[in-house]
Amino acid sequence: MEKTIYIAPFIHCESLTELDVCPNGMIGVGADGKIAFVRRDMKGRQLPVEEGWEEAKVVSVGENCFFFPGFWVVDTHIHASQYPNAGVFGKSTLLDWLNTYTFPLESSFKDLDKAARIYNRVVARTLSHGTTTACYYATVHVPATNLLADICHSRGQRAFVGRVCMDRLSPEWYRDESTESAVNDTKASIDHIKQIDPEYELITPIITPRFAPSCTDATLTALGKLHHETDLPVQTHISENKSECQLVKELFPHSASYTDVYDSTGLLTSKTILAHAVHLSRDERKLIRERKAKISHCPASNTALTSGTAKVRTMLNEGLTVGLGTDVSGGYTPSLLAQCREAIFVSRHVAMDHGDDAKLSVEEALYLATRGGAEVVGLQDRIGGFEVGKDWDAQMVSLGPVVPETVGLDGREGLVEVFGGEGWEEKIAKWVYTGDDRNTVAVWVKGRLVHCREGWRP
Amino acid sequence: MEKTIYIAPFIHCESLTELDVCPNGMIGVGADGKIAFVRRDMKGRQLPVEEGWEEAKVVSVGENCFFFPGFWVVDTHIHASQYPNAGVFGKSTLLDWLNTYTFPLESSFKDLDKAARIYNRVVARTLSHGTTTACYYATVHVPATNLLADICHSRGQRAFVGRVCMDRLSPEWYRDESTESAVNDTKASIDHIKQIDPEYELITPIITPRFAPSCTDATLTALGKLHHETDLPVQTHISENKSECQLVKELFPHSASYTDVYDSTGLLTSKTILAHAVHLSRDERKLIRERKAKISHCPASNTALTSGTAKVRTMLNEGLTVGLGTDVSGGYTPSLLAQCREAIFVSRHVAMDHGDDAKLSVEEALYLATRGGAEVVGLQDRIGGFEVGKDWDAQMVSLGPVVPETVGLDGREGLVEVFGGEGWEEKIAKWVYTGDDRNTVAVWVKGRLVHCREGWRP
Repeated sequence: MEKTIYIAPFIHCESLTELDVCPNGMIGVGADGKIAFVRRDMKGRQLPVEEGWEEAKVVSVGENCFFFPGFWVVDTHIHASQYPNAGVFGKSTLLDWLNTYTFPLESSFKDLDKAARIYNRVVARTLSHGTTTACYYATVHVPATNLLADICHSRGQRAFVGRVCMDRLSPEWYRDESTESAVNDTKASIDHIKQIDPEYELITPIITPRFAPSCTDATLTALGKLHHETDLPVQTHISENKSECQLVKELFPHSASYTDVYDSTGLLTSKTILAHAVHLSRDERKLIRERKAKISHCPASNTALTSGTAKVRTMLNEGLTVGLGTDVSGGYTPSLLAQCREAIFVSRHVAMDHGDDAKLSVEEALYLATRGGAEVVGLQDRIGGFEVGKDWDAQMVSLGPVVPETVGLDGREGLVEVFGGEGWEEKIAKWVYTGDDRNTVAVWVKGRLVHCREGWRP
Repeated sequence: MEKTIYIAPFIHCESLTELDVCPNGMIGVGADGKIAFVRRDMKGRQLPVEEGWEEAKVVSVGENCFFFPGFWVVDTHIHASQYPNAGVFGKSTLLDWLNTYTFPLESSFKDLDKAARIYNRVVARTLSHGTTTACYYATVHVPATNLLADICHSRGQRAFVGRVCMDRLSPEWYRDESTESAVNDTKASIDHIKQIDPEYELITPIITPRFAPSCTDATLTALGKLHHETDLPVQTHISENKSECQLVKELFPHSASYTDVYDSTGLLTSKTILAHAVHLSRDERKLIRERKAKISHCPASNTALTSGTAKVRTMLNEGLTVGLGTDVSGGYTPSLLAQCREAIFVSRHVAMDHGDDAKLSVEEALYLATRGGAEVVGLQDRIGGFEVGKDWDAQMVSLGPVVPETVGLDGREGLVEVFGGEGWEEKIAKWVYTGDDRNTVAVWVKGRLVHCREGWRP
């Protein structure tokens, strides 16, 4: 890769509640894909740059454009195989939704041609929405899971790829035959990823028990053992829906709680990502904090499936680490920008019952989608913001030209309307509320251009 | 206009809960813009058509395309002048939002150049989202209000245009000077619309007291009198937010309820549109039903401003007529398609507390956005569905080509993903959940093409 200097406004999250806006920025990205220097006082290309960068390629931007950390650094939770069902769930809730919509679709991934078509599309689409890192649930199928890893690797998306383990509750035609086969198939997928990316620079295997009700105690315990042996991360669901919580009580009568099911099987550690966390008790949240496990909040899914409202403010106040997940196809969209809106809106519904403190701001939603996500997967030192030494996982955002005096829609522009005179805070709010993939002009992962819109050239 | 035959699948709402899907349809639209015939058994252009239509122009469509009633027949409630603030509201609630964001913007519409730029853009954008009829709040300014009417008329959007009346509560620099001036300015705007559209074929004036707290008793009474003299419709807000409801109690100590404020001043009739209706009591809903007044549900706004959740199922069960409004800029988007999603999602939140019956289906949301909206403005005999004699207010929707085997995003396609094999019910669900303006290829009002995407030709 060429050394590149990006001259543009850049914006990232300073803290949970504050954005750092640098209107006249310059960021140098080395041939290793890492940020080599950051300057905040640029007013044009003519200023002198660091020694050794005189010949570097320069990328600058037009009006109403800025760089933002690669969205979202982490989509902490997305079921890649369910993508074709996005938007299709009727009035169902979790457990009937699985049987009606999800298991039949997932089981079809034994067909590798089908898997190739859908996984290619998911990765292309999530990149086009600015998702530079995704935590994928694949299916039980080893070849298709490995294919997903290959596709992420070749398209350049940072990904955690999990072969799904499940040896009960689902239909006979879609489950692991035994604990042994669940573990062996998981290992097969780990081995494959080791072959294509030995240092896990871009692709990391993730141990993936679907969720407690889908796994026997023996399988959870075996996966917990594998987790400790390999030190690989774990992802699963927790406490999404009341019927599911009741089911867990019945299936694990000796466990103190849903959280304890994972803890007692060795699956609750600082490298564990728990999706949903809607109905956790205070004691469960305490245990999660003690184990330093992480939360993936999936607001669109929780609303679509009437699962409930996760109490994000409470979790943040208690010191839990929270990122955002799309939970496609429980969630209807692979866009993390849309998910920011949904997180804000769910927090409004929590506020209606529990008071204004529950409200998440635009800045907080963006934090969850960038630095929060990076913390969830333990990559906060490598991605999530624009600091020297971090990887250049970034998206170039364009809000389009200022609305002209004489009117005309050219039909290709996005929906964000800048009338002129807006400050950065207002522009960012307009992006989050009215923006979509049309505003994500180009996307980089580790310095590599992995997506750009038709017509854009660096 | 030319007689035109549209050969395509068409879909409209049969009832609140059912769609009528006609995969092989043919609709003839006469030179008067009205539907002349509807056939459901077409399998190609070669079938004989009605006598006298042999020479008519023919419009047919590609794969995954269909006609849907002009969205949404009614955006029952949109503040055109607030459009530049869409997405900008921070964490505010209604009353501070008005002072911080709304009044300063609205007052600037005394500048006609500014009004022209923004109103032209609003009308172009709402048409591009498929909104064929809109119920607009303008501002207090007569020239700008008249300009909005002119713009709707020339661009061909069916509209109800209301000059806003408000003689208290707002800052001195943005209010009516007196009851007399409020009424006279309203009449001036009515006179203007009479000049440009004497029969109110496309543009209708609508009497618009902002909301009870903004108007003195004398002004409400005078507007009630004007309503009865002119038989013109009325639009206002009701019971959006708890602080507002408390304020109404204090300002109108002799009124039995918020609803009674409008009823006792002659403003609650079958031609009244009440936006929001979040915190209505049972008695108020009963009174509204008795008066046959109508409700505009604004789910995105109610969530964004933490106003509360309107109980749509309850209102429907009690026999109230409900349509959907965007309430821009309380709502973040002028898209009624997005508003359908928001209505469904708000209903999920209501269901979390009040049981599954509260849930609105995709079909029900579409009904509210088409026939429901038409009923709200009393146009159910003219628009809202594809029946002989109705106006051709329609949108052509394209879900795009089936996802190819070999992957590539061409960058101009929308977000709906059709993988092949989906039934119409699933396609419609995907449209509602993942679609946007990119899927609305062309829009007609009264048979006139009023919007189409770049590259499309009839």
